[in-house]
Amino acid sequence: MEFSSKLLEKTIDVFASLPGIGRKSALRLALHLLKIDTDSVQEFTTAITNMKTHIRSCQRCHNISDNPVCHICEDARRDKSLICVVENIKDVMAIESTAQYKGLYHILGGIISPIEGVGPSDLTIDSLLQRIQEQEVKEIIMAISPTIEGDTTIFYISKKIKNLPIKVSTLARGISFGGELQYADELTLGRSIVTRIPYKSE
Amino acid sequence: MEFSSKLLEKTIDVFASLPGIGRKSALRLALHLLKIDTDSVQEFTTAITNMKTHIRSCQRCHNISDNPVCHICEDARRDKSLICVVENIKDVMAIESTAQYKGLYHILGGIISPIEGVGPSDLTIDSLLQRIQEQEVKEIIMAISPTIEGDTTIFYISKKIKNLPIKVSTLARGISFGGELQYADELTLGRSIVTRIPYKSE
Repeated sequence: MEFSSKLLEKTIDVFASLPGIGRKSALRLALHLLKIDTDSVQEFTTAITNMKTHIRSCQRCHNISDNPVCHICEDARRDKSLICVVENIKDVMAIESTAQYKGLYHILGGIISPIEGVGPSDLTIDSLLQRIQEQEVKEIIMAISPTIEGDTTIFYISKKIKNLPIKVSTLARGISFGGELQYADELTLGRSIVTRIPYKSE
Repeated sequence: MEFSSKLLEKTIDVFASLPGIGRKSALRLALHLLKIDTDSVQEFTTAITNMKTHIRSCQRCHNISDNPVCHICEDARRDKSLICVVENIKDVMAIESTAQYKGLYHILGGIISPIEGVGPSDLTIDSLLQRIQEQEVKEIIMAISPTIEGDTTIFYISKKIKNLPIKVSTLARGISFGGELQYADELTLGRSIVTRIPYKSE
């Protein structure tokens, strides 16, 4: 499709460069912005520019934050002896939305992956070790995907802190709540039999 | 979901205000913009701002254009005696993408709709009548949706030019090419029998 305006075409190009937006959606979005009032369009671009310019990473846990220290790290009601180590900020959001966890986080910014050229020094592992030294940490929860890279990362970190009096745990794995046995994958089902837990009547 | 940054939240809000983008997609887009380099984000916002600031409407046909007169109106190869009247710029794009039409356009900017408070003076009908006076026009093609409002608009315009030596036509309507009879709606099928055309073996 040829457009009568290079300015429109450029806007379609930049929208279409975003993940999950094709050229037809990009056209619809561009025409929408053309139709609405100029103030709303300015609000749109200003929000993005402000976010990109002013957002920062929490100097303690590396979560995204508007301030030097994020609101989770500054929350006095949270258990500071508990650190949940995750790969990225989406994982923090997922865990926070469960409202089940009241400790702190540490965002690695990725996992160790020799194939993609990500080594321990590219992650915030040193900063995690420093936090453990400065702060009285009793337990580290490794909330990292059970892939080869994830396991390598967990192994690397746990080895670094093995001489410290810190408990290391990982997330419980097994059949989903509400999941039917016949639809569970073999690996999960097999391991959930091996790691079976005592029955508790509640 | 609670976010650790008001700046991020604001960006999610503005993305989610766009048509067809929910809050989950908005989050994904915002995190994408956070991840990519600052220059790309600036390119994104600049493209939108430039479009909104500098795009204008062609002073002849009211199509969107980067110049006072759009490239279709300025194209010497186009038949200037033929004007296709459409509701909006999306219709121009749809017709242009067929590559079957070599005349000019006139974008009304809407259709007459008393319910929505749109009268003839809100549309570019006066400008169309002026074009007809100034330019030698032989035929006007009414490429407007066959709704009550569309028919009213066609009726209004055709009445205004009925004393001029101009042919008025509308788009052919009937069964789609490749469409199966059993899936055609009753109105289209019924009217396509009434307005049947002589068979031509090609």
